[in-house]
Amino acid sequence: MDVAIVGGTGAEGFGLALRLAKAGHHVTIGSRSAEKAAASVEEAKAALGPHASVDGDVNAGSVAGKAVVFVTVPFAGQAMVYDAIKDVLAEGTVVCDCTSPLMTAVGGRASHALRPWHGSAAEFAKSLLPKGTRLIAAFHTISADVLRNLEEDVDSDAFVMGDDADAKAVVGSLIRDIPGMRWVDCGGLQMARIAEGLTPLLISINGRYKVRESGFRLTGRDAWGDPRG
Amino acid sequence: MDVAIVGGTGAEGFGLALRLAKAGHHVTIGSRSAEKAAASVEEAKAALGPHASVDGDVNAGSVAGKAVVFVTVPFAGQAMVYDAIKDVLAEGTVVCDCTSPLMTAVGGRASHALRPWHGSAAEFAKSLLPKGTRLIAAFHTISADVLRNLEEDVDSDAFVMGDDADAKAVVGSLIRDIPGMRWVDCGGLQMARIAEGLTPLLISINGRYKVRESGFRLTGRDAWGDPRG
Repeated sequence: MDVAIVGGTGAEGFGLALRLAKAGHHVTIGSRSAEKAAASVEEAKAALGPHASVDGDVNAGSVAGKAVVFVTVPFAGQAMVYDAIKDVLAEGTVVCDCTSPLMTAVGGRASHALRPWHGSAAEFAKSLLPKGTRLIAAFHTISADVLRNLEEDVDSDAFVMGDDADAKAVVGSLIRDIPGMRWVDCGGLQMARIAEGLTPLLISINGRYKVRESGFRLTGRDAWGDPRG
Repeated sequence: MDVAIVGGTGAEGFGLALRLAKAGHHVTIGSRSAEKAAASVEEAKAALGPHASVDGDVNAGSVAGKAVVFVTVPFAGQAMVYDAIKDVLAEGTVVCDCTSPLMTAVGGRASHALRPWHGSAAEFAKSLLPKGTRLIAAFHTISADVLRNLEEDVDSDAFVMGDDADAKAVVGSLIRDIPGMRWVDCGGLQMARIAEGLTPLLISINGRYKVRESGFRLTGRDAWGDPRG
């Protein structure tokens, strides 16, 4: 699948780029700076081998014609990034917002959540995008360190929210391609109000236990994935 | 340990009463009605055997002299219950609030969260209790059905919040006595703002997948429990 990672030079985005490229997808790393994108492409090829299907571009260029676009930027940069890409998104592109609104956006702590007017960063993103954009929210609980450590499977489930069941399944199929990961349909986009809060909860736990890898597995059922079967 | 479960005739509280009595603790089931409490004691003894250390009382009577008091009532009844017990709590008693503020309290859906003025139901409870009460919040993500099914271990970790590390460890020691369960120190009482939201998230997931047992395991570390070691 053709995938772009907007903010793919950041820790979370770069880890996701590595995992999806390793799974055989064509990944374009987007950045505000073409030079930074190129440097991350080099780093990805150093990790994955020279034939890895990874290239780079500025954010707006990275998303054109892609099946799925992940947006992995800090909350403070979210509006600017959607403004840059919104007119370039192809019809039908699935956009997966990975933003967690943390108090760091306003000089506070990463273990404290910030409540956007719209309810969640995902709903704020929706308000910035053309009507009909297939917007999904996911990856709030997946450690960047875990994603970047290609030596080990990812011991975490991804919580996926959105109002378009088919778009959720598209993102879910990419998640399933990452060894160890499963995806859980948590409901409509508004449930991102809760899932986005899990990032500061994990940051608080990481601080208490001096780790950087905490995450969640969902229990109570043998398999998750698409609830439509 | 001498433990009271205020609201112990409800599904979650009764499940917790069964598990703690089975672990060998003395459990007093509290209810607004002495008759209902007595009926739940009979039901517990039917499940655990006639020698199980379970008795019942009205809520205010149930908490006197106890080491730990769990409050497991719907959000709509929380203030009334704390008003009933606050003058009877012994000094040093650890109070563990298990309330999740759901929109059901105002006629809405259980998959939707309600935001109390104080930030969380736990912080609301703090405002209702005498200064110095050792208040902890936990059990928001532990399925009542799973607790009541004594045939199987509990395949979930409990997220524990509070500002008194020793009190957290006391509640943690009770959690550890329930087969399968571990406890995770998630930080101060304010982190309940996030953990309380996990109840509607699980309710949403349960609805999608037609189960009643979803829960969380925390990954990223072999053991959790007291971060002080």
